[in-house]
Amino acid sequence: MWEYRPPVADMLYLMTQVLDAPASWSELPAFEGLDADTAREVLEQAGRFAADVLAPTNAPGDLAGCTWSPESVTTPAGFPQAYRAFVDGGWPALACAPEAGGQGLPQLLNAALYEMLTAANHAWTMYPGLLHGAYEVLLHHAVPELRERYLQKVASGEWLATMNLTEPQAGSDLGLVRTKAEPVEGAAAANGVPVRLSGNKIFISGGDHDLTDNIVHLVLCRLPDAPPGTKGLSLAIAPKFLPDGSRNAVFCDGIEKKMGIKGSATCQMRFEQAQGWLVGEPNRGLAAMFLMMNAARLHVGMQGLGHLEAATQNAWRYAAERVQMRAARRPPGATGGAADPIAWHPAMRRTLLTLQARTDACRTLAYFTAMLLDESEQHPIPQRRESAAQAVSFLTPIAKALFTELGHRSADEALQVWGGYGFVHEFGIEQTVRDSRIALIYEGTNEIQAIDLVMRKVLDDGGQRSRALRARLKEECQACGATLGTVPYGHALAAQLNLWSRAEEALLDGAAADPEWPLRVADDFLMLVSHALMAWAWARIARSALDPALAPVAGGRSALQWLAAAQFGQEWLLPQAQVHAARVLQRDAALPFV
Amino acid sequence: MWEYRPPVADMLYLMTQVLDAPASWSELPAFEGLDADTAREVLEQAGRFAADVLAPTNAPGDLAGCTWSPESVTTPAGFPQAYRAFVDGGWPALACAPEAGGQGLPQLLNAALYEMLTAANHAWTMYPGLLHGAYEVLLHHAVPELRERYLQKVASGEWLATMNLTEPQAGSDLGLVRTKAEPVEGAAAANGVPVRLSGNKIFISGGDHDLTDNIVHLVLCRLPDAPPGTKGLSLAIAPKFLPDGSRNAVFCDGIEKKMGIKGSATCQMRFEQAQGWLVGEPNRGLAAMFLMMNAARLHVGMQGLGHLEAATQNAWRYAAERVQMRAARRPPGATGGAADPIAWHPAMRRTLLTLQARTDACRTLAYFTAMLLDESEQHPIPQRRESAAQAVSFLTPIAKALFTELGHRSADEALQVWGGYGFVHEFGIEQTVRDSRIALIYEGTNEIQAIDLVMRKVLDDGGQRSRALRARLKEECQACGATLGTVPYGHALAAQLNLWSRAEEALLDGAAADPEWPLRVADDFLMLVSHALMAWAWARIARSALDPALAPVAGGRSALQWLAAAQFGQEWLLPQAQVHAARVLQRDAALPFV
Repeated sequence: MWEYRPPVADMLYLMTQVLDAPASWSELPAFEGLDADTAREVLEQAGRFAADVLAPTNAPGDLAGCTWSPESVTTPAGFPQAYRAFVDGGWPALACAPEAGGQGLPQLLNAALYEMLTAANHAWTMYPGLLHGAYEVLLHHAVPELRERYLQKVASGEWLATMNLTEPQAGSDLGLVRTKAEPVEGAAAANGVPVRLSGNKIFISGGDHDLTDNIVHLVLCRLPDAPPGTKGLSLAIAPKFLPDGSRNAVFCDGIEKKMGIKGSATCQMRFEQAQGWLVGEPNRGLAAMFLMMNAARLHVGMQGLGHLEAATQNAWRYAAERVQMRAARRPPGATGGAADPIAWHPAMRRTLLTLQARTDACRTLAYFTAMLLDESEQHPIPQRRESAAQAVSFLTPIAKALFTELGHRSADEALQVWGGYGFVHEFGIEQTVRDSRIALIYEGTNEIQAIDLVMRKVLDDGGQRSRALRARLKEECQACGATLGTVPYGHALAAQLNLWSRAEEALLDGAAADPEWPLRVADDFLMLVSHALMAWAWARIARSALDPALAPVAGGRSALQWLAAAQFGQEWLLPQAQVHAARVLQRDAALPFV
Repeated sequence: MWEYRPPVADMLYLMTQVLDAPASWSELPAFEGLDADTAREVLEQAGRFAADVLAPTNAPGDLAGCTWSPESVTTPAGFPQAYRAFVDGGWPALACAPEAGGQGLPQLLNAALYEMLTAANHAWTMYPGLLHGAYEVLLHHAVPELRERYLQKVASGEWLATMNLTEPQAGSDLGLVRTKAEPVEGAAAANGVPVRLSGNKIFISGGDHDLTDNIVHLVLCRLPDAPPGTKGLSLAIAPKFLPDGSRNAVFCDGIEKKMGIKGSATCQMRFEQAQGWLVGEPNRGLAAMFLMMNAARLHVGMQGLGHLEAATQNAWRYAAERVQMRAARRPPGATGGAADPIAWHPAMRRTLLTLQARTDACRTLAYFTAMLLDESEQHPIPQRRESAAQAVSFLTPIAKALFTELGHRSADEALQVWGGYGFVHEFGIEQTVRDSRIALIYEGTNEIQAIDLVMRKVLDDGGQRSRALRARLKEECQACGATLGTVPYGHALAAQLNLWSRAEEALLDGAAADPEWPLRVADDFLMLVSHALMAWAWARIARSALDPALAPVAGGRSALQWLAAAQFGQEWLLPQAQVHAARVLQRDAALPFV
């Protein structure tokens, strides 16, 4: 049966040994007292919450779904209790500043927390999922009075927050947003002024629910006489209950019947001259929202990783237990009867190692990105903050698109391990397939991530931040030497970096002649870079696993097991990069209108 | 909103012009009177049934599912009525022999029929899905008395049939089947003797339902003292109601809660000393069952094609209607406002052309295989029957694995076209994703198809039938010449056939040294051959589209549209074959036990 065992030992091995996070923390004054033991304690506690409190509500929550009535939305049994335990444990404020009542821990640990929460119950995790983004928006853009009123409530999770962007006609294209914000009593529009909000929003996660006494909506809207398009968007805050305790005119008119995350209420919202206040400067709402969206994109990437881990560990367990047919070959020393564990059959070994290699690489990249995020926020040297921020801005669309793509695709491939049982709800994996699908869409579809990468992160600065990151990754080639053991990790990584570099040159060259061309191959460019990043992760893991001073932490996988997955990734998964490179480089391939 | 418009014009174009089925029919006495006009009439009628009767029950059937009680299984509203219309229309007997009350039409038309039925409602199509296989088993293996009693009822669809193979411990490994068959009153086991059946079966599609008065179960079982493994399996028939009208001791103990095809009752069956009769020789049950399974595998391939078509046509329609953002480039002569149809955006054009190119190639290959099947059954010259049968046996596992893989993956990729709406039930595509998933598993998982291809269809005859098929496909290189228009179809096809040939040489060479090696790369070999076959299909389509004598049939796509998809497939999709070839050819890549 499906279960979730938090991979704390794997997480710690990657954090503390492969990526040496403690050395990085020692450079950041905010994390001065933090060491590997504290990190372990935080992760173990988070793991217990995910496994013991959340995971048991996952399958029942999928079957029950949410219930809507004109007055309220009821979440599945156990969801409110789990949320109260989450708030009581102080988890929402993990990475918030101590001044706002937070614990001031790194984004790295917050990312690991959300990986575990999603793996245990994605639907439930949607409710607190936007808290940190809302916290950042209020911290940086709200006037003091609004910060005073809402910041601590949101940091602590006492009130939940939503992000009201999408409208029926405005999905990927937020320039089409129509929701109106009219300053009250004809006041001039300015940060903090009260407004009346009118309009309809769709796909609002947690737009209504029974988890908290109040809900804080952040609403993308348009002031009177605002310019058309995205340059005329403003941001406002509108709580479900107003400061005087009265009900605001924010209504949930229904919830969607969805493929997955059925325990998450996806709401149709109606603002009927609702009371709100501007957050940030008029017509600068998208910039403020982007602060939330960037955090949200990395967060969605962690959801993909959570599903990847859940699929991987469950597939390994099932494949070890299920026996069918004799294997053509058995592990050294093993004996067997009429049928062997399917984990011994070559087709299943391939699937299992594919899943494991992806999980290890994506988690390494996720933590690498989160560490850079911490550096960008906390490093005492401004240039270090800036260069880290540049790297994060490059890695964020990749983390979002790559992890969610591999999370969903891996769950779908893992399902095959169960055969017919995989199609049956009680075995759990089919829910992972369904739940994981949404992450390729929301917070900017993966296609939009690829466009963001190519247009804004490569073409806009002539490839500068991309080259800087490549130079950094290239150090691993030298560190690995020609081979590690018998495997040419350094060579393979160099080849991947070279492909990336060639493809990028082609992009920079070709964009001038044909401005549409980069858009035609954006998806391939993102996947090409992704393979180079995974090659780097596997090389780095292999180097740690072969270093006798860095034996895997107690309770985790053996060095040999880490090596097996890294070598498999390098030999079986990297060839895919050639296809993406070929598509980017064949500049004259037709893509007609039909 | 999701709808299904039977692609009759596309079907006819491929059948009658690209593959010239009428020329083939003229060689087969059984189809002497058949011409393109008759085929059109059959397909149009079938299309009306699929679109007007079946498709409206698809989404409601998914929401309602089946209802189980100890006495019976109730199918969703409209299912029984649709089934009666299906029987009244004579559809079950389309490809059955006139002697058995059938219409004696080609398997080709039957395949096209089932493509349309699945596209319109996969869950419903599960019920009649095994009729033709059961018909073949009874026709070829049952003693006259049983044939007399059951053949016509099954051929006409008056009674539905099931295939009882799987047991909890015996999924892919049928050698582990335990269900017992004891000859009544100690009679010697022989074809046709009455037996008592005892055991439990799972995953029995249509094991119980309210569509027909009686249900005919074909049951894989084991006689007393039978040898262990697959060589001790026998086949028996056991009806729900016995000839005297009494209820047989065959019970449905429950139905599965599944990811998809929720309107199809997936039953747990219990045989309690149920009355049955052997069909075929004792201990030769698997051979008899394989007759049914091979037909079933091609049938499942057609399900994949049905989903592929449904996803493709719905994605095209939605992408033409939905407007978001300005496109970087517009079609020649087009103007637009603040936002353009998403079909103009490069990322969506790629998805849409990917879907269309796959659909066209798979349908061409499906019809090619079905025409060979007709030839193998009906050609007057024994050598022609034999060589066609060899080709069919090679193509069947590919059709099953390739079409179902692309059907599901394409539905999943198509969902992205809808953005957030794709995740919502009422837009239909998420149901296609869920429904299509099972086809990668049942009738032998796709991994088992790959093993079948490599071990039994290539290694067993030293590559003989594979070479024969390649030689046949190679004729298309000459027919295409160096280029068609500006596109080197012939060259690309030759390169694909060469890759296939090299990979096959490597397989034949390497299998002796390392018997496990072919199993490690079986999936890649199947996909490598699949790409060569698709290259052949695109070349053939392009040649027809460029032939002024073969303009597409009225009401269908223009020659330019066929060419656009073929060229896209050739330029954007064929590079993937390189990855599969690289994996097959890198013979020393590790695949350790972990």
